[in-house]
Amino acid sequence: MNSIQTIAIAGTGNVAFHLGKAFKEAGLQIIGIYGRNSKKSFELAELLESNVISKPEDLCADLVLICVKDDAIEEVSNLIHSEIFVAHTSGSIGINALGKHKNAGVIYPLQTMSQSLEVDLTKAPFLIEASDTETLKRLAELSACVSEDIHVVNSEDRETLHMAAVMVNNFTNHLVATAKTILDEHGLDWKLLLPLLQETSQKLKYLDPENAQTGPAIRGDQKTIEKHLSKLAKSEQQLYRLFTERIANHTKES
Amino acid sequence: MNSIQTIAIAGTGNVAFHLGKAFKEAGLQIIGIYGRNSKKSFELAELLESNVISKPEDLCADLVLICVKDDAIEEVSNLIHSEIFVAHTSGSIGINALGKHKNAGVIYPLQTMSQSLEVDLTKAPFLIEASDTETLKRLAELSACVSEDIHVVNSEDRETLHMAAVMVNNFTNHLVATAKTILDEHGLDWKLLLPLLQETSQKLKYLDPENAQTGPAIRGDQKTIEKHLSKLAKSEQQLYRLFTERIANHTKES
Repeated sequence: MNSIQTIAIAGTGNVAFHLGKAFKEAGLQIIGIYGRNSKKSFELAELLESNVISKPEDLCADLVLICVKDDAIEEVSNLIHSEIFVAHTSGSIGINALGKHKNAGVIYPLQTMSQSLEVDLTKAPFLIEASDTETLKRLAELSACVSEDIHVVNSEDRETLHMAAVMVNNFTNHLVATAKTILDEHGLDWKLLLPLLQETSQKLKYLDPENAQTGPAIRGDQKTIEKHLSKLAKSEQQLYRLFTERIANHTKES
Repeated sequence: MNSIQTIAIAGTGNVAFHLGKAFKEAGLQIIGIYGRNSKKSFELAELLESNVISKPEDLCADLVLICVKDDAIEEVSNLIHSEIFVAHTSGSIGINALGKHKNAGVIYPLQTMSQSLEVDLTKAPFLIEASDTETLKRLAELSACVSEDIHVVNSEDRETLHMAAVMVNNFTNHLVATAKTILDEHGLDWKLLLPLLQETSQKLKYLDPENAQTGPAIRGDQKTIEKHLSKLAKSEQQLYRLFTERIANHTKES
């Protein structure tokens, strides 16, 4: 039987929402929610059939999950009783931010979460780390209630993976935002790009990105590149040129 | 009944392969393949149960699909008899490259295709254009045998959409290639990023990219941004900085 039966959560954002829901659905009891925003705390507590805890000092459970903003993790952790097992959920904060606690860990789901959208966490890699072997074992058991893909990763590697995730998620999203801006200006529907975007990511299940690279930059198709540049505003040209150069060089090097 | 029953294809690349297969599966007869590379021509002709045509001058069918490289479209088109209905499949070449032909058109599937991977063209937007209304009708009927999503788009708008497609497909793929390079250097598995990439594209079915934007750049999280920059080589820093600035500005403007 899982040694963690009850969870309390500090934070009411996207990660608190989705992890809280997932652990509840896996049969764990969420017994306390603490958040600075009391309206959001009550809403999340209602959803998770939990209590609202008004001070971090009063958080108490088999595990307290700290899902607050990166900058606040250490501060909130320091307010929680040192005997309590805590884990934060951030990609870029080291486990040492929880140094006050004898039993501490990290559960970082390598996935993007928005409260307005359902997300399937069973396939999301959960990167876990803990203060000691016994705690790691408990965290692994807990994570396995939600995800089928658990990896033990130290703070430095987790930070590197978080940076790569920023590129793949945030930067890709911005490329689509840029494409949308251009298509909007021409009265064209950006949603025409969606099947292409789906296929771009699907392809990478079967091909390495080096082998999946197509387009004018890798073909060295200067005519098309010039035509595209002539359609773009200055700041977009900078982006287009940088990618075109990088794609050409990446190929040469590899 | 579809007015086009037989198709001949100039070209043996990814588009010739996938469109040829899709039209054959839709019940059309592929009666001729012309390609500069005779080995590839024979292979594709065998797959499509077609003949190999040794000179473009001899291509003859209800429609000749020109799937050659952009630079060769006009030249190949000029070698085909002017009475024959031709259509090219390029995003960035205008219909005027087929000016010799009385009946001419464009079928541009807004999708990425690799011969080594199956692709579902039923959901791919087919952007079509033709020399006249009657020809457009024939092309629309033909396209509807393969895709459920037909759009009439003129050459200029098609070029804009092609440019946007380059950003969303080629540039995104390069972001993953960059992330992979960094993770390789740290001995970390880039495939950990795949569920995140899938979700990044899935999300955009439900949210505009402006509303789906997350991450340190939009939060103005300088600490994390500095940490990431410190891990990157110079050329990667340039990419990271450009996106970070653009994401911050995009938000301010919108």
